[in-house]
Amino acid sequence: MAKLQAPSGFRDFLPAQQRRRAELMRRIRETYESFGFEPMETPVMENISVFLGKGGGENEKLMFRVLKRGEALQRAQEKGEELADMGLRFDLTVPLARYYATHRAQLPSVFKRYQIGPVWRAERAQHGRFREFIQCDVDVLGSSSMMVEAEVIVASVTALERLGFQGLAVRLNSRWLLRDLILAAGISEELVGGAITTIDKADKITADEVRVELLGRGVTAESAALLLDLRERLQGLDNLATLERAEAFLGIERGLRNSEEIRKVTEPLREILDLVPTLPAGAALILDPFLARGMDYYTGPIFEIAAEGVPFSLAGGGRFDELIGKLSGQAVPACGFSIGFERVFTLMEERGMFGKALRAADVLVTVPARDLARAALDLAADLRRQGLSVDVHPGVAKLPAQFELAEKKGIGLALVLKAEELADGKVTVRELATRQNVTVARDDLVTWIRDHLHGA
Amino acid sequence: MAKLQAPSGFRDFLPAQQRRRAELMRRIRETYESFGFEPMETPVMENISVFLGKGGGENEKLMFRVLKRGEALQRAQEKGEELADMGLRFDLTVPLARYYATHRAQLPSVFKRYQIGPVWRAERAQHGRFREFIQCDVDVLGSSSMMVEAEVIVASVTALERLGFQGLAVRLNSRWLLRDLILAAGISEELVGGAITTIDKADKITADEVRVELLGRGVTAESAALLLDLRERLQGLDNLATLERAEAFLGIERGLRNSEEIRKVTEPLREILDLVPTLPAGAALILDPFLARGMDYYTGPIFEIAAEGVPFSLAGGGRFDELIGKLSGQAVPACGFSIGFERVFTLMEERGMFGKALRAADVLVTVPARDLARAALDLAADLRRQGLSVDVHPGVAKLPAQFELAEKKGIGLALVLKAEELADGKVTVRELATRQNVTVARDDLVTWIRDHLHGA
Repeated sequence: MAKLQAPSGFRDFLPAQQRRRAELMRRIRETYESFGFEPMETPVMENISVFLGKGGGENEKLMFRVLKRGEALQRAQEKGEELADMGLRFDLTVPLARYYATHRAQLPSVFKRYQIGPVWRAERAQHGRFREFIQCDVDVLGSSSMMVEAEVIVASVTALERLGFQGLAVRLNSRWLLRDLILAAGISEELVGGAITTIDKADKITADEVRVELLGRGVTAESAALLLDLRERLQGLDNLATLERAEAFLGIERGLRNSEEIRKVTEPLREILDLVPTLPAGAALILDPFLARGMDYYTGPIFEIAAEGVPFSLAGGGRFDELIGKLSGQAVPACGFSIGFERVFTLMEERGMFGKALRAADVLVTVPARDLARAALDLAADLRRQGLSVDVHPGVAKLPAQFELAEKKGIGLALVLKAEELADGKVTVRELATRQNVTVARDDLVTWIRDHLHGA
Repeated sequence: MAKLQAPSGFRDFLPAQQRRRAELMRRIRETYESFGFEPMETPVMENISVFLGKGGGENEKLMFRVLKRGEALQRAQEKGEELADMGLRFDLTVPLARYYATHRAQLPSVFKRYQIGPVWRAERAQHGRFREFIQCDVDVLGSSSMMVEAEVIVASVTALERLGFQGLAVRLNSRWLLRDLILAAGISEELVGGAITTIDKADKITADEVRVELLGRGVTAESAALLLDLRERLQGLDNLATLERAEAFLGIERGLRNSEEIRKVTEPLREILDLVPTLPAGAALILDPFLARGMDYYTGPIFEIAAEGVPFSLAGGGRFDELIGKLSGQAVPACGFSIGFERVFTLMEERGMFGKALRAADVLVTVPARDLARAALDLAADLRRQGLSVDVHPGVAKLPAQFELAEKKGIGLALVLKAEELADGKVTVRELATRQNVTVARDDLVTWIRDHLHGA
């Protein structure tokens, strides 16, 4: 075995870490399922034509390709043709579009789905960039109603709240509102993209730095001043007042759009503000006309979720009414939200946000001598029947070694079997952290362990 | 999009099916975790050298290879070198060996792991052969104790029993016992492999057919008769009597081995018979000296699990003390069991063994009119806070269409919102199967739904 490591950029997960990853997936899944989102699965690879030239952009270039096999490979090599016939998915959206095209007739008229699964990108190895990572998407296909926006927002906030994040804030905007504000400030069409990139940083840099960067992009001083002034004037307003002031800027103040055109952009936002119920744990819904999200494929409302003290967003999403049709040839309105699984996981690890209860088993039954092996297995079977998770030391060993194994697996209790105690209807329980032994009546054992685990 | 299907040999899973697959995984996982088996994860791909020339045999040939990228690909093409730098795993055992070599120092001295995940093989498309399928393995690395055999047997029987399989029987043998019986019957070393292949079919074909096939393989009539006679004489014996008769055949009757050599082969079986506690649901543990399992890598006890009325085994395993060392360069004793996930899943689907409770949500809140949308979302949020899973129809639509959506998602109850009822503290619940409406007080709604779901 030439190289005994995972391939560069790929990760193994040790048991303790994998338990926490599985726990994170489970909790997100349970939340989304409680909202009626349905699971689905596609293969990890698709015919390569599904991925090529579908606007995957940078991600398409990062796709891992699967080599053709046998005669097909030979033929491709001889003729200098494409060597790969399949590609590994680089996101969960392109496969969703293909899946929807294949199965539309069998799916509900409005398809609410979630998917938590790995995707692969041939990123250059660097800090924090993995070549295999989990994406976690919810999407609703087949409805143009803003109820969908409301549902994915509430569901995603609920998921993050249940994970233990506090001070959650959903920032809401429409892709067209920001664009129109920029145009209304007198910035020309071709500078809009660059201006958005700069504005996207406005939370992290000073107003002066924004101004300098805008000027550097060819924006006039007057336009930059207008935008920054508007941004200033929106501070501290409530959502409806913010919306009205933005509308006034577009119409009365700057005369870019007539009121009907303006309402077309702002009405969906007004609807969402009206529809979203009180968010859990006091999370805020904040209309932010300067929120920019990079993706070109959004066609309406966009949103992201931030948490107190976290310098990046935990989830992002929006409406993408054209993407599925572009990918699948079957037009369908769509809206989704994606939780940044890997960054959420890292954050929760760093902050110790996983419960202490993630252990390999509730208790380890030790095997001090060969003639106690059957008794150990019998005891374990009985405790499991009563609902405990029970590890048995797999073989005879010195007790300290057995205790060490338990601790390595996060197990805090060990049962020390002694023939005379067993005959007497008793068991010694050792609490590994304190190294204290307690003798417990066999009949009280399950209750004792349960109480101890709850107390611990 | 040229071809709007999953690639040939790959499968999509619709929501209802995926819920059942997830449920199956969850139940197996919970059982194995209750025995102290730990989860772990490796990348889906490994450096190709990890897979090559490691005795993967047929599977190695079926490996999907991942194309090199950029300059490395160009160089490989110019020089006619290997075009792939990674391979997709074709089982969960080779990656386990690599993982163990990488992380041994951080793992418990005895490593009990389970893994349920996809593997890929470029099988020719044919009925029942998939190119992407789930494997479900438990393995214990680092212990030579027969307690390990006892634990993986009990855990796997428990898992299958909890899935609802009845009349479970574990057949147990040692790889060396069958081999020695064949040699003792006077069959020469080089015919052993072929004889095992024939004996492996002895449950499905008549004794005469076995005889004919053995003769065809070059076995003498006398040897064939001796084997078939022994097989006959073992019928109806209990496990210890079976073992003693097999020992007598090897020693006293046929004089192949002296008693010490014989005990070396049979002692582990005696230990397992002694150690395995009473199996759940009356499952039987049956010593079968004629049990043959194909794999060459087994080095001791082998076993498989059958269920009443199922013509193939549901799980198989054994001890493989040399494989991990051969793959990783670090010798370590090992023993494992593998549940045939895909065949178990198919069987459970065919037999309707999944509970009826697998629905997308407990209840759907309908939205009969736009001005009830916020009320619908509020009601849903409240019901969810009380622990129900609640879908909301994503947008206004005619009621029959909303009911249809619910039924398509397996949801049996719909709440029909009416402004006047809401004002009155009431909600109409429709049972979709019977098309009956019941008006329930808002305050009693959660209890009513819970009772209904439990009764249904």
